[in-house]
Amino acid sequence: MPARAAALDAADPLAALRERFLLPKGVVYLDGNSLGALPAAVPPVLADAVERQWGTDLIRSWNDNSWWQAPLRVGDAIGRLIGAAPGQTLAGDSTSVQLFNALGAAARLRPGRPLLLTDPAHFPTDQYVADAVARLFGLQVLRVPAGDLPRLLAAEGDRVAVAGYSPVDYRTGELYDMAAVTGAVQRAGGLMLWDLCHAAGALPLRLDELGVDLAVGCGYKYLSGGPGAPAFLYVATRHQAAFDQPLTGWNGHAEPFGLSGGYTPAPGVGRARIGTPPILSLLALEAALTAFDGVDMARLRAKSLSLTGFFLDCADTLLAGLGFTAVTPRAPHRRGSQAVLRHPDAYALVRALAEQEVIGDMRAPDLLRFGVNALYLSHQDVLVAVRTLREVVLDGSHRQPRFQQRETVT
Amino acid sequence: MPARAAALDAADPLAALRERFLLPKGVVYLDGNSLGALPAAVPPVLADAVERQWGTDLIRSWNDNSWWQAPLRVGDAIGRLIGAAPGQTLAGDSTSVQLFNALGAAARLRPGRPLLLTDPAHFPTDQYVADAVARLFGLQVLRVPAGDLPRLLAAEGDRVAVAGYSPVDYRTGELYDMAAVTGAVQRAGGLMLWDLCHAAGALPLRLDELGVDLAVGCGYKYLSGGPGAPAFLYVATRHQAAFDQPLTGWNGHAEPFGLSGGYTPAPGVGRARIGTPPILSLLALEAALTAFDGVDMARLRAKSLSLTGFFLDCADTLLAGLGFTAVTPRAPHRRGSQAVLRHPDAYALVRALAEQEVIGDMRAPDLLRFGVNALYLSHQDVLVAVRTLREVVLDGSHRQPRFQQRETVT
Repeated sequence: MPARAAALDAADPLAALRERFLLPKGVVYLDGNSLGALPAAVPPVLADAVERQWGTDLIRSWNDNSWWQAPLRVGDAIGRLIGAAPGQTLAGDSTSVQLFNALGAAARLRPGRPLLLTDPAHFPTDQYVADAVARLFGLQVLRVPAGDLPRLLAAEGDRVAVAGYSPVDYRTGELYDMAAVTGAVQRAGGLMLWDLCHAAGALPLRLDELGVDLAVGCGYKYLSGGPGAPAFLYVATRHQAAFDQPLTGWNGHAEPFGLSGGYTPAPGVGRARIGTPPILSLLALEAALTAFDGVDMARLRAKSLSLTGFFLDCADTLLAGLGFTAVTPRAPHRRGSQAVLRHPDAYALVRALAEQEVIGDMRAPDLLRFGVNALYLSHQDVLVAVRTLREVVLDGSHRQPRFQQRETVT
Repeated sequence: MPARAAALDAADPLAALRERFLLPKGVVYLDGNSLGALPAAVPPVLADAVERQWGTDLIRSWNDNSWWQAPLRVGDAIGRLIGAAPGQTLAGDSTSVQLFNALGAAARLRPGRPLLLTDPAHFPTDQYVADAVARLFGLQVLRVPAGDLPRLLAAEGDRVAVAGYSPVDYRTGELYDMAAVTGAVQRAGGLMLWDLCHAAGALPLRLDELGVDLAVGCGYKYLSGGPGAPAFLYVATRHQAAFDQPLTGWNGHAEPFGLSGGYTPAPGVGRARIGTPPILSLLALEAALTAFDGVDMARLRAKSLSLTGFFLDCADTLLAGLGFTAVTPRAPHRRGSQAVLRHPDAYALVRALAEQEVIGDMRAPDLLRFGVNALYLSHQDVLVAVRTLREVVLDGSHRQPRFQQRETVT
């Protein structure tokens, strides 16, 4: 395996991109799917935003440093990574808030259709928001696995307002067929909403080409925008004029400084703006996105598949007989950008690994989850991770009591 | 006036607090009610948050640097400034989002009461959010000036679910009697929700003592938390167990890392958390709040009134006969922390002033608005501002074409 890792890294056309990140020495960081590493572009941009733009230019920065335009400008920068032409993507708020407005607006775009579909394996906030919107609008949430959608749509498709799914299962890393799901939902007359939290920045996405209706996603995973970085919302151009979100604020008004008491939405995707966005976090995200400058997403995807494929191969070889099961699909077209193993001691193993500077995470009860950001990881990193995991299991160091006790957050 | 300014500043017990802010030399900043000046504590804290916490500690910072606790910790720091005992205040999201959840939860706390009261002079987002909540819940918004509340409550009080008001008129600076309004609404059985955007950090507030039900406010005005700093929400302890917000997210779950598909709210005000908060902006706000450390809010209020009173006196003397009318009430108990003048050339005057490094703002069509943050302003600043305004008007420099053309944002 070491020779193969070296050969793959030597042939990696994207190897130099690692320089765009400030990774601590000696750390193998496989949790970029929870919090991306710090891009080198961020600290100077943020220092300028604080000291010059806020400190010196003060309130004038809303004009002079284009703070006002930041949500649309950063949105378009994300749009370039998800296959969205300009003017359809907006950055701001959290994924939960964007999802709430997207689902609510979808319900209003499809009146008389009482069903809202979501994945029972979907990330919890997506399920909570779906339930919240259904309660407000008098709709019903059906939790339907992606694989069962054809059957459900055949039976009740004309009652479906919107289907909200993630292209990547956040636990297993399984990748769904976005084109097939989008087509099936739309043929039934429903709207397709994708949650791209685990896909944006990790996979080539083609929202416009697939004719997706709505999408949301977060800024802090593969986009590496920093902790709690603003989320994004995509509204296809054809839906913008009728996009009627449940939660409106003055930033989305056609004349925000007219300060009128009645709400008239702005034209375009800007109508989905709500309140004043957290500019410091937003400018950090904008700087982070420059790590993608000039990067061919198809190449990034090829490297990501090489890394996750190599991970699974290393696991086959080095972890054989040690109680692990690979969970992530082997077939490249069914694999997102993470490698997931099942083991009954997942929690303690992930903690013991972290002490060896190999950082992954786990999802209860028994999944070890290793996210792969191909912008800054190498095959050598992957090999070190799996080797360290083997060492930890073999010497039983994860059985020490300090690794067993649960913390609030992992 | 110069001698009086010097004497007042010499006797100012809070003069040294100016050192806590990084104000550009030569600038008189009277727009802290739109964007507070940069506190000196912010840059090093933010650099540490980015470079050490995010860059080096990475995902572990959610535990090791207590990011997870930040919304409640920063909330309690704001609580100390608004008269709220710990465990009732939460920081995060924008004012519009917090207001939406507060009004929606209020409607659910008072079922069967179809009226939602707000001020026709209220900041627009408050009106838009009230309309949005009314539409979702089948309620009716009545726009009732604070002065007319007694009459309305006498006639229809038993139909009022919640009244949402600001203690300070954002245009004129008029201060309402929070105790009287709160009492009147609550005697009718309604809930009182205060929007503290123009009051938090500027006035001593006594939410617990007045028995206020709910409050929201922003972090970027008198709290000086930075552009678009996270907002806050106050939920009185007695309402927390039944607080049932329309927009729920995984951060508000009782067991957020249980990743359950069904929503069980956390105990306490933490249930009002929604999605992952913008940590960088939140930590900047936390650092900014240290500018209030050890500051007696009654003393800050006394200095604020001295500054705005001196402003109005200077205007009487120096601007007499130049077409200005003072709008802010003279009586101290009716005055917030701003001084507002009416003049038909308000827009051009504010722009011409800015070129002389005196920064205020305007509200259409004819109000010049000067916000006073007593943490960093002096009577000398006030005198310079009014003198400069006099010079601009006398030499007519504001009549130059470049000051007439509107920009997007002022």
